[in-house]
Amino acid sequence: MTNHQPLTTNHMRVLSGIQPTGRPHWGNYFGAIVQYIALQDAEQAYYFIANLHALTTVRDKQLLSQYSLDAAMDLLALGLDPQKAVLFVQSDVPEVSELCWILLTGTPMGLLERCHAYKDKKAKGLAADAGLFAYPVLQAADILAYDSDTVPVGEDQVQHIEVCRDIAGSFNHQYGEVFVLPKAKVLDSSARVPGTDGEKMSKSYNNTLAVFEAANIQKKQIMRIATDSRPMDDPKDPQSDVLYLLYSLVAPESDREEMADLYRRGGFGYGDVKKKLAEAAEAFFAEARSRREDWQSRPDDVRDILASGAAKARQKAGEVLSRSQEASGLKGY
Amino acid sequence: MTNHQPLTTNHMRVLSGIQPTGRPHWGNYFGAIVQYIALQDAEQAYYFIANLHALTTVRDKQLLSQYSLDAAMDLLALGLDPQKAVLFVQSDVPEVSELCWILLTGTPMGLLERCHAYKDKKAKGLAADAGLFAYPVLQAADILAYDSDTVPVGEDQVQHIEVCRDIAGSFNHQYGEVFVLPKAKVLDSSARVPGTDGEKMSKSYNNTLAVFEAANIQKKQIMRIATDSRPMDDPKDPQSDVLYLLYSLVAPESDREEMADLYRRGGFGYGDVKKKLAEAAEAFFAEARSRREDWQSRPDDVRDILASGAAKARQKAGEVLSRSQEASGLKGY
Repeated sequence: MTNHQPLTTNHMRVLSGIQPTGRPHWGNYFGAIVQYIALQDAEQAYYFIANLHALTTVRDKQLLSQYSLDAAMDLLALGLDPQKAVLFVQSDVPEVSELCWILLTGTPMGLLERCHAYKDKKAKGLAADAGLFAYPVLQAADILAYDSDTVPVGEDQVQHIEVCRDIAGSFNHQYGEVFVLPKAKVLDSSARVPGTDGEKMSKSYNNTLAVFEAANIQKKQIMRIATDSRPMDDPKDPQSDVLYLLYSLVAPESDREEMADLYRRGGFGYGDVKKKLAEAAEAFFAEARSRREDWQSRPDDVRDILASGAAKARQKAGEVLSRSQEASGLKGY
Repeated sequence: MTNHQPLTTNHMRVLSGIQPTGRPHWGNYFGAIVQYIALQDAEQAYYFIANLHALTTVRDKQLLSQYSLDAAMDLLALGLDPQKAVLFVQSDVPEVSELCWILLTGTPMGLLERCHAYKDKKAKGLAADAGLFAYPVLQAADILAYDSDTVPVGEDQVQHIEVCRDIAGSFNHQYGEVFVLPKAKVLDSSARVPGTDGEKMSKSYNNTLAVFEAANIQKKQIMRIATDSRPMDDPKDPQSDVLYLLYSLVAPESDREEMADLYRRGGFGYGDVKKKLAEAAEAFFAEARSRREDWQSRPDDVRDILASGAAKARQKAGEVLSRSQEASGLKGY
């Protein structure tokens, strides 16, 4: 495992939502999760399993509840420390749904019609549900409910943070300073995580390596990665080879340098690189996999963590909701 | 006051929402409120002050909270009996907002795009807020949260009950029988309530007579109603005269017949009719006005009734919400 160095001054108030839509792959881990978790030393750090958002796509009772618990176990195994950060399930905080309606009443239709996810689906001629359309408003409610000032997101989510700022700013303009306006913290996307076919690793390309895969299965997946047929002796550019790029994510720095030299010198077989990659991957994720098995064996402890997290989250969200209800005249009649 | 005869068999489960957007006029009273209240002997009857819906139009803290308390006092003064029916403020039941999001995720955009209120506003080229757009979904959440089977509505709201049935039916189809499908009970609109100008009584025409107006002010308003200049002796058709139509709403049946005869015979002055109308109106609403003053003098008792109503409403709504959360996998992880 890499060290989770605090990337934040400790007076930040950070919020991250993780969709429970399946098991994490290396792309999720290096592109997002490890960066989220690195922020857990903030003054307030809230991490929630976004099951209300997932409901827009996962319409299966068993899957949704299983994915939700899995996501919590994944985060805990990957280093999320419930002593530092608040970990909870979104639907366990009713205040967020309440806030969502309040925000909807002040959200211009045009703002939501311009949002990419909805717009793209509509442009493809697909029928959209109102949940996809209103998705950015629920996201705004999540962010505003905890007075978050920092929201780590991928580039594709920056628009939603802008929408959140628009909605919150317009509410504040109408009713006084109720909401804290958040800023997006764009995730570092410099780490390239290719899939087993060389394309970007993505569930929709079916080219993923799962973080919590059993070592022997992962080894087989790695051994099956297609390679080119250049002679062994030819020098090769490590940065343009899938195996090297994957290796560089999980190998210690010295080994990585050594491997890069080997590529540049030539005279090696891809089979050996695959073996080293499988070994490095196993070592890199070993601790997390072992922790994952441990959590798996005591799900009630995970449920306790989530319950305690929800209680803390509700306390904060309740304060913010009350502010908005008092400001708008929903309370105080 | 008319008698509130039970119009219902007592195993109905009735829900009515009243928007706190201003004081009731005769049109509201005869066209809706008196008919709502007549249903309070149902097995379950829930009456709520729809402040979350009102938030789409009333963006003023003082007005919204004042209107909300006023609306509760109005209903109590007009005969709503908190021993029979549950009276509460919509935003005091968080479960409804939670249910609203769950329903949004399964509501096709097309269903909401076809709803009149949104469609009309859009057709006029006006900018709509997402709250107006999602309005029928919140209404569906209100209805479904109490397992309501009967929803008294005006003709213009029948479409929203159909939308509610569509949403609930589609959820049940996906997840099993979770929601009770409600039926609209269309209000009797046979009682014509003309405004002081002869048009339909409506706040937007500025031709209303308020239910709780002081008697002397109401008398002045009535005395100012414009009348035609036909000779006193001419026989007249009572059914085409504003004064008679208003009189027939508030006068005892025998007086009403006598007045109709007088119209048909001719030989009377409109000034006398106005006096009789003012007297009849005062008598008709006297008890309600006196009760209204009584409630006004003890607002905390009204707040207690609303708090106790909200507690009862939350109990029922909590059951229904739990059913929907368990069915969809939001709970049980």
